[in-house]
This record gives sequence, structure tokens and C-alpha cells, in this order.
Amino acid sequence: MKAIVYQGPGQPVVEQRAQPQLQQPTDAIVKVLKTTICGTDLHILKGDVPTCEPGRILGHEGVGIVESVGSGVTRFKPGDRVLISCITSCGRCAYCKKGMYSHCADGGWILGHRIDGTQAEYVRIPHADGSLHPLPASIPDEAMVMLSDILPTGYECGVLNGEVNPGDVVVIVGAGPVGLSALLTAQFYSPAELILVDVDANRLAVAERFGATRVLNSAREDVAAELQLLTDGQGVDVAVEAVGVPATFALCERIIAPGGRIAVLGVHGVKVDLHLETLWSQNITLRTRLVDTVTTPQLMKMVEAGKLDPQRMITHRFTFGEALKAYAVFGKAADSHALKVILEM
Amino acid sequence: MKAIVYQGPGQPVVEQRAQPQLQQPTDAIVKVLKTTICGTDLHILKGDVPTCEPGRILGHEGVGIVESVGSGVTRFKPGDRVLISCITSCGRCAYCKKGMYSHCADGGWILGHRIDGTQAEYVRIPHADGSLHPLPASIPDEAMVMLSDILPTGYECGVLNGEVNPGDVVVIVGAGPVGLSALLTAQFYSPAELILVDVDANRLAVAERFGATRVLNSAREDVAAELQLLTDGQGVDVAVEAVGVPATFALCERIIAPGGRIAVLGVHGVKVDLHLETLWSQNITLRTRLVDTVTTPQLMKMVEAGKLDPQRMITHRFTFGEALKAYAVFGKAADSHALKVILEM
Repeated sequence: MKAIVYQGPGQPVVEQRAQPQLQQPTDAIVKVLKTTICGTDLHILKGDVPTCEPGRILGHEGVGIVESVGSGVTRFKPGDRVLISCITSCGRCAYCKKGMYSHCADGGWILGHRIDGTQAEYVRIPHADGSLHPLPASIPDEAMVMLSDILPTGYECGVLNGEVNPGDVVVIVGAGPVGLSALLTAQFYSPAELILVDVDANRLAVAERFGATRVLNSAREDVAAELQLLTDGQGVDVAVEAVGVPATFALCERIIAPGGRIAVLGVHGVKVDLHLETLWSQNITLRTRLVDTVTTPQLMKMVEAGKLDPQRMITHRFTFGEALKAYAVFGKAADSHALKVILEM
Repeated sequence: MKAIVYQGPGQPVVEQRAQPQLQQPTDAIVKVLKTTICGTDLHILKGDVPTCEPGRILGHEGVGIVESVGSGVTRFKPGDRVLISCITSCGRCAYCKKGMYSHCADGGWILGHRIDGTQAEYVRIPHADGSLHPLPASIPDEAMVMLSDILPTGYECGVLNGEVNPGDVVVIVGAGPVGLSALLTAQFYSPAELILVDVDANRLAVAERFGATRVLNSAREDVAAELQLLTDGQGVDVAVEAVGVPATFALCERIIAPGGRIAVLGVHGVKVDLHLETLWSQNITLRTRLVDTVTTPQLMKMVEAGKLDPQRMITHRFTFGEALKAYAVFGKAADSHALKVILEM
């Protein structure tokens, strides 16, 4: 079969590989129909993820058809249309028992990282009963691909960790795919203001179409001053940090109201300053999270109910033959205006 | 009347002052029976609290008898025995409406800070209906003084902010009065392990008597290594930072388990490093809080029920005539082994 492979820092490589086989009774083999590229794949290709070794098939998102299952798989059978979760969950360990699948003792984020991933014609899914979701027939495949990772990430790590409440003033710093996912799902909780901050005018325009009540361009405006003005000097109830660098975290610290919540949605590579000399008395909550995908079934219901349209995230579609072009387009999002791309296998 | 006054950095001064008068209809004048000295008073005397101006009568804790009330006070009348909360609450502003009395628009921590405090024969209490508590006859005055500040602080900012659950492994870094208050109240929630860390052998011995399941002396032991060993490399569920310096915060970051909670109970003077490069994916929660004293009635019930003994915190008792000696003893706690001192007015 054909597969997109990480062979060390640089461009991904399209290779011919053997089709994966069942290894454990709890495995399933899935024929991939559609997948996508994640910012994390770009991190891997830059050499930022040392736990991902050369030779690894990339990808941790996708929709497919079950090809075969091990004797221990009870929820799925060959022919079932399934969503592949980016998080593998055994369902039995202490972390899984408390819904922290991201830290599963025999899973977590392993697909396209520690084991071969979904950017191939077939993929082996360990702990299939806990790591696949049956798909409602009414929802298009490409919409569902957005539920493998990006939408639960924005929702769990941004909206739920930020405890967005009706009437809140919510600021999302960073209007990339993950910030926009938080924007779409924050609307479930009816905040009074839902403000997007970015340096990219195109992404801010997208944010307005996706439901932001206002947008601020941090390349041209003093965002902290604007937000203080908007909130009568009180600060914002929720700040979602969706970039992953010290400057955007610092902005969140500056604008948070007493009693406010900071949700760390960005992937950080270096430490940040935490200004406890002012924040110690400000009754703030700060949360981090690797997506657990515990909300995938809930998000599916919202899609079925017509209250969430994941296809709005998709800007580009490619065939497998165009895989390297897809990586190039996604990698130069500022020029291509790419949000999420669909790769049809 | 006699009062203990801050006259700029250095020793406090005992002065003769005019008795306070009702200024607003919502005020009460309280004759102080017993008060205590807080670590915050020592901070003021070092000049660390610039919002406290010279000439200010110190003190924000105490028990007394209502002397007179304004026409708008409905819950109290002259002769009532009352607990004075360290936090003044108007009960009407947006912060009070959500139980964040610490940030009351016309209150918060003002006693012995922005207005004259309780280390005097009489004190004026603004917003008396929201800032005083009626006292059960069965509880001794000096036990109740511990409920003005120290016990709700340990409970709200340490135990509740740390979300202590049955079966948790809880570490409290710092066995001073506030850490010991967290130790006493954490036991309400039946953690599996309740571990105290300090450099002072005497305070660790106190912690053992107060119910710590084990103690670690960070001057002599590699605390992080010990805790990793104790938790099979998982880390602790709750870390309460009860000192207020970067080193103790760094320890809490190092020992927290995925899914764990860090409660910042210490008063911090400088920023700290937040290691988001590792913590971003660890599903941790970090909370700060200035005590709101919303739990004072709950803590009173626990004292009445015999499930909390605040008098264990009291190591020394002084008359008003010995006030400067009391400050000296409390200020040299490492030598005097003082935890909380009672000043009888």
C-alpha cells in the first residue's frame, strides 16, 4: 500500500509499505477513506517531536471502513464505517477509568507518532473498541474527519477547560484551526462576547464568519488596552491561549479578570513567566490538557442536530496522489489561507 | 483607646487613638475581645504592602462584642458576640453576588490595610451585615479568632482550590500556619496520603500531630525523588504551595501527576517559571485565590460538630500590654515555635 512517511526532518516521503496486520485480539485494521494533516504533523517534520522516529507513517485523524478485527473486538465488524480517534484508549487503565484517555497507559497519542498512522491506505488501530467511533450515516465523511482531533481539542482544551458560561466575555488568542475550533464550540455556551485575536487579517475575517462578536489584530492594535476598555477595566472571564508562545500567554495573563479562567490550548516548546506576584490574589484558574476525545460522541450529536458544521473548517481537498502538494499548501497557510485540508485516499 | 499602629517599616507602635465612630448606616462598632497577628501584618511592617499607609491601626482578625450599629444594620445589635471576618463584603456588587467577597467593590481585604483594623480596643466594621458572623455560645472566643482568616484561607485557597478528593495523594509544601490550616481542613475529604514538606523540624513534628500521614524535610531529603518513589512515578494528585517563593512553586510543578491540581496558597512577591513545555499536555489545573471567607459558616459548623479544633493552632497568649512582645515572638517563629498567638484586649 502507499503511505506518507516521516524520514527525518524535511519533506514527508510517499512510500510503498506492507499492509498492516492484526497484532493483538483488540486490534482492528481500517481502510482509510479520508484523512487530514495536523499542525502536529508539521512539528514532527521539523524534528520537534523526538519520540517520533524516522520510518513512521504519519497521521492521527481519519474516517474509514473496518477491514478486519481481532477476536477481542466486540463493537465493530468488517464493513463498519468508523471515525478514528486521534487518541487510543484501552478503557481499562486508571487514566482511562477517569476519562483521561490522553494519558492511557497503553495508548494516548500514539497514532502517527509511536506507531504507524492514518496517512496510508490502511491503518492498524489498537484497542479498537475504545479508539473507533461508529458513524451516523447522515454525516459526510469529511465532516467527521474534523472530529478525530481538531474539534474535540478546541472544545475540551479550550472551551471546557476555560469553563465558558452564558454571558461571559471570552477571548481566543490565535485564529488557527484549533482557535477556530474553540470559537465554533464556545458558542454552545452562549458567551456575551467571543473575541478573536490574531495577526493574520484573513484568519480574523474567517473568525468573523464563524461567529466571533469582534476581532482584534494584535499586529496593529494594543489588544490588552482594547480589552480593558471593553470590560470597564475588569478584564475578560475566559482567555484561551491558542498559539503556544510566551507572548500570547503573557497577553492572557494581562487581560484575565479576577475569577477568570486561562485555558492553555497551544503546544508550548519553552517555559513561560507566570506572574504570581499579581495573580496570587486574583482567584484565577489555569488549565492545560492534551485532548482526551471524551467529547467526540457529544460533538457528533451536535453535528447531527445541525448545531455544529465541521465542514466550515475545510478549505482544500486533495487526492492521495497530491499528498506532497497538500503538505505544501497546509504548511504555508498564511499564503494559501488553508485551515484544514482533506486527503482522499 | 489603645491601638497597635503601623508607622512605616520597623516595629509596630502602641498609640492612644480616638475611639472609632459610625460613619455609614451599614457600619458597626465592635469592642474587640481577642485578636491575633497574621503573617500579613509582618509583611506590612517590612514595608512590603505599599497600599497600607503609616498611621494605620493593624489587624484583620478578631472576636468582639457589638457596641453600636448604624440604622442600616439588620443582623446585629449592641451586645451581640461576633466574629470579625478578615474580608469586608457589601453583598451587593457583582463580585459579592458570585461569592468572590475578596474582590468586593467596596470591601475585600481593607481592615488593618486601607482602613483601621482590629488590633485596638474598638474597631469600625463597614458593611457589618456581610462582614460579621454571629457566634455560637458553645465555642470559645480564641477558637473563633482562627476563623477570621487563617482557617478559611487554608481551606478555600488550599483544599477547595486543590479539589482534594477521597483517596488522593496530597502534598502541602510549607508547614506554617496557613499550610497547617490546609492540613487540618484537607482531612474533611479523606485523602489517602497527606504529606507535609518543610525545612523546620519543629513544624514537621506539629504537622505529624495535626494528622499528616508523613513529613519530608526538604533541607535534608530529595523531596521530588521521594514523592516519585511513593507514587510509582505518577506524581501527586494535589500540590498545595504554601510558602510563596519560586523554589516551592517549582517543586509543585515537578511533582504534580497528570490530571493533578496545584493550589497557590502562598503570597508571592515575584514571578515564577511555569514549565508549559512539559505541562501543556499534562491536564493540570492551577488555581490562585485571595480568601473569600465564604466558608466561615461551614467551618463554624465543623467546629461545633467537634470535627475541627482551631485551638490547636494557638501556641502563645498575650495581654494587650504585651503586644510588642507578641509581635517579637510571632516574628521569630523558628526560635519561638509560634504558630498563632492570641492577643487579649
